[in-house]
Amino acid sequence: MSGRVEFGLRVYYEDTDAGGIVYYANYLKFIERARSEALLGLGLSQVVLRERHGVLFVVREVAARYFASARLEDQLVVTTRLAPITGARIEMAQDVLRDRQVLVKCRVGLTCVGPSGRPVRVPEAVAAALSGLPPLKDDI
Amino acid sequence: MSGRVEFGLRVYYEDTDAGGIVYYANYLKFIERARSEALLGLGLSQVVLRERHGVLFVVREVAARYFASARLEDQLVVTTRLAPITGARIEMAQDVLRDRQVLVKCRVGLTCVGPSGRPVRVPEAVAAALSGLPPLKDDI
Amino acid sequence: MSGRVEFGLRVYYEDTDAGGIVYYANYLKFIERARSEALLGLGLSQVVLRERHGVLFVVREVAARYFASARLEDQLVVTTRLAPITGARIEMAQDVLRDRQVLVKCRVGLTCVGPSGRPVRVPEAVAAALSGLPPLKDDI
Amino acid sequence: MSGRVEFGLRVYYEDTDAGGIVYYANYLKFIERARSEALLGLGLSQVVLRERHGVLFVVREVAARYFASARLEDQLVVTTRLAPITGARIEMAQDVLRDRQVLVKCRVGLTCVGPSGRPVRVPEAVAAALSGLPPLKDDI
Repeated sequence: MSGRVEFGLRVYYEDTDAGGIVYYANYLKFIERARSEALLGLGLSQVVLRERHGVLFVVREVAARYFASARLEDQLVVTTRLAPITGARIEMAQDVLRDRQVLVKCRVGLTCVGPSGRPVRVPEAVAAALSGLPPLKDDI
Repeated sequence: MSGRVEFGLRVYYEDTDAGGIVYYANYLKFIERARSEALLGLGLSQVVLRERHGVLFVVREVAARYFASARLEDQLVVTTRLAPITGARIEMAQDVLRDRQVLVKCRVGLTCVGPSGRPVRVPEAVAAALSGLPPLKDDI
Repeated sequence: MSGRVEFGLRVYYEDTDAGGIVYYANYLKFIERARSEALLGLGLSQVVLRERHGVLFVVREVAARYFASARLEDQLVVTTRLAPITGARIEMAQDVLRDRQVLVKCRVGLTCVGPSGRPVRVPEAVAAALSGLPPLKDDI
Repeated sequence: MSGRVEFGLRVYYEDTDAGGIVYYANYLKFIERARSEALLGLGLSQVVLRERHGVLFVVREVAARYFASARLEDQLVVTTRLAPITGARIEMAQDVLRDRQVLVKCRVGLTCVGPSGRPVRVPEAVAAALSGLPPLKDDI
């Protein structure tokens, strides 16, 4: 697992649609699960961040490119890589794979907001923890 | 519309699953939309109830019987009827229909809770407004 | 794992609502995930059952009682027990727990349907496999 | 409403998350509802397209920029504009607004696929009907 945080999940009926494939919006759920577990794996609970530090990560933008479809009972993997943090901005690349095939490539821009809802610089300790994520050097 | 509050909705891809039909949990979303609109139609905003009066309706139990399946693009109707309110307890019968065929019959038990999360008697004004809902006398 | 099939899951943002707790319909997703994994653990793929045997399990009824609420990042467990199978009918009790506290108790009735959508007796081999589930003797 | 197809919707509990706002993936549901209704308004049923013509619109890419958050009971509007169709490719801009404020701006790329799952030129009659959508000339 050098250079990647990998999160595994299974596709259930709830994730699919009448086209027989995973509904396009549900990949955003998958990558959010992966982000949450990546943070927890680094000791960052979003509940603790919010309740104790008043800090919240809000999605500012997301882009997804769909190459192939996942289906019922598929076993998927989500990878998460982090671009350098600048101020209040966190940027990640997250891919959804089946076996080694990339199904969906996502790019997610988050903003760190404070209790007032205004952007605030990512706290030092949080940035330090996040640096445990594999770095994003490249493309989407 | 004597004796029924009727809420119409369309089935979209998000509601369906790989079986080609509406996913069973999503009917609970449909009836919750109908409850919310029924309340709003009676002048009861759940946001206002919570923010001003500290009062929240929490689902205590739900039972659903599925008779036939809804499909993509179906136009559905949800009906809502209310049993007599007793203390903190609100009980409703909600049916999901296509044309005049009942697809799903639901029974929902709600508890009115206060700011502490404890059950509190349904406020007088709320109970009075709710009495505008058609009465439930019967079956599920 | 004597007498229980246990399925673990984490609560993510997608599962919660503006009340700060898991949305009531989403517990039905949790228990469906647990059913799917229980079947897979017994060697029963629903994809294979449908594509090769034309057999599908359709939810006929579900009842849920909510005792306490799950929250963001909670680690939950779903247990699944099976009542004796009769003809086309499968009945399960599924509980959602946090630590050892029962949050939600569910009862699910499924019907085995054939390619025509009509109920068909649960195939011998499927019934045999299902008997690997812990038995439901009691209550909901 | 010259130059826009407008689709109205209300925010319910199912759409929100523990942050008190609409969950980021759910805006993709909103815009898909709007696309479906836009098509139906033009006489294009996706069920009919698939069953009679073997034609399906598959999402190839989506990009969303989030400017402000929708909340419980908000009344939203989704606008849909269409770029010139080229071969199998359909491109739309869809915005989600509350009052006249843009909350989310989306760009959606669809591919028209045939029974084999391969891209096929958008059928003449479908392209003609789609031309009833307001044109996208500009930005995202």
